Amino acid sequence: MSAAQYLSEGREFIDAAICRYLPEETTYPESIHKAMLYSVLAGGKRLRPVLVIAAAEAVGGNRHDVLPFAVATEYVHTYTLIHDDLPALDDDDLRRGKPTNHKVFGEAIAILAGDALLTQAFYLMTYSELMDSVAPGNLLRAAHDMTSALGTAGMIGGQVVDIESEGKPIDAETLEYIHIYKTGHLIKASIRAGAILSQANTEQLNALSTYGAHIGLAFQIVDDILDITADESQLGKDVGSDLGKEKATYPALYGLEESKKKAEKLVEDGIACLDIFDDRADPLREIGRFFVQRTF
Amino acid sequence: MSAAQYLSEGREFIDAAICRYLPEETTYPESIHKAMLYSVLAGGKRLRPVLVIAAAEAVGGNRHDVLPFAVATEYVHTYTLIHDDLPALDDDDLRRGKPTNHKVFGEAIAILAGDALLTQAFYLMTYSELMDSVAPGNLLRAAHDMTSALGTAGMIGGQVVDIESEGKPIDAETLEYIHIYKTGHLIKASIRAGAILSQANTEQLNALSTYGAHIGLAFQIVDDILDITADESQLGKDVGSDLGKEKATYPALYGLEESKKKAEKLVEDGIACLDIFDDRADPLREIGRFFVQRTF
Repeated sequence: MSAAQYLSEGREFIDAAICRYLPEETTYPESIHKAMLYSVLAGGKRLRPVLVIAAAEAVGGNRHDVLPFAVATEYVHTYTLIHDDLPALDDDDLRRGKPTNHKVFGEAIAILAGDALLTQAFYLMTYSELMDSVAPGNLLRAAHDMTSALGTAGMIGGQVVDIESEGKPIDAETLEYIHIYKTGHLIKASIRAGAILSQANTEQLNALSTYGAHIGLAFQIVDDILDITADESQLGKDVGSDLGKEKATYPALYGLEESKKKAEKLVEDGIACLDIFDDRADPLREIGRFFVQRTF
Repeated sequence: MSAAQYLSEGREFIDAAICRYLPEETTYPESIHKAMLYSVLAGGKRLRPVLVIAAAEAVGGNRHDVLPFAVATEYVHTYTLIHDDLPALDDDDLRRGKPTNHKVFGEAIAILAGDALLTQAFYLMTYSELMDSVAPGNLLRAAHDMTSALGTAGMIGGQVVDIESEGKPIDAETLEYIHIYKTGHLIKASIRAGAILSQANTEQLNALSTYGAHIGLAFQIVDDILDITADESQLGKDVGSDLGKEKATYPALYGLEESKKKAEKLVEDGIACLDIFDDRADPLREIGRFFVQRTF
């Protein structure tokens, strides 16, 4: 199966369950549930949950067993988008071609919808009855591992440095920090979670972690490239919006060609880490290749 | 030991550990860690962590075993204060006599500091190595139970209704909802957590839950009363600030005397739930009584 097929079928599998673990929008108080569903249902590739599933399957696990945890990673991702878009942060009006959460529901509800999605993600990640074929110790470990990736030694750290670097000249080291921390850590943690929940051994977990770190950074470099080269319709936000905000990007620092080469090399090295796995890791290999193909 | 003594010693016990589970303020990126520590160290009674400990001790548990989880409840509480104070929400400049987080660090860092404290709380609540005398299954259960209390079927639900009710006439039912959800659920969940982590049986857990629900509501009613009757210096915020914001309160709806009676009755009924416990539950009994004595 090609990466495009695997990603598309994975996305359908996740989309069929994406609302299952959220209150309906008629649940009191309605506004917050409408706001949460609005952003969760605003589209997206469901990349993080699909990576949870692909990692689980790579180590011989079952996608149904890790489904609630996989959905939780999408709630986490959605929370970060809602808070990132707020006027006090990136101040974006458009996300995936639609008005951002605070444009529709107001800032107060948008802040709380982000908080609520993060909370609901933790609710799912610790819901042992939902994942009854996962050992409680593994569930606890995966949840704890995920929280490390989301805090100030992870995603929030990257977010802070990103904000504080706006409009300033930054060096390659800082740019790499922002990309690895703001984007890479959640991607890596999603892959690790699928593996931990499916009883990966230490060698497998280490290999998948390194793979995840490589493709996580490659993914963000490709995003930088697409911000310059893609059509607005493909991107769902203003093309060149990073430039407009004076955000540092890989193409700005290294040029387009060199950035593509860096992304390709990262993916190649990442895929090489998967040599210890059999063909059940093929989706992960294909997804890695697909990441860089997006740039051409 | 009197409630005042127990609360004061409990507060010292918590304060000695309150920074242990946060990065130092010199950790990169510094601004977010400074912001987190600023609000965590801004004072407060450490009521929620002391209740975790008191509930643990009531069922024969040990305060040292539940300490990291207890500290986590204070991080949660601090996150809610930082986000509540934001301009888009309550727009408060002063908290515990000091400028609020966003006044000192700006809105972006304040939003992220709240996010980071919530995340760090979940990090602690799932850190089985830190709580190695707690069974992993109990840790998972307490963490999951806590997340229920923090989401839209708990604290955030109360917060939403509170915001949406501002400046409107509201009925007794809505006011009770706001108080129970916004304040009561975290207080109840803190008590439940101490009990779950210390292997409470179902009867004990049910009794402590009902106790927690009663004193949680009483606590907020007393807060409403103090907002009118206390000196500014005692309160650390503007006296009558609820009135100024046109927030509904118990005294506004029922009058001062009737509000006091309601709080007293709640505490009395709550303490009656503790009849199945021996004198190790005396601190919980005393704390309940202390709550209403604050009003006189």
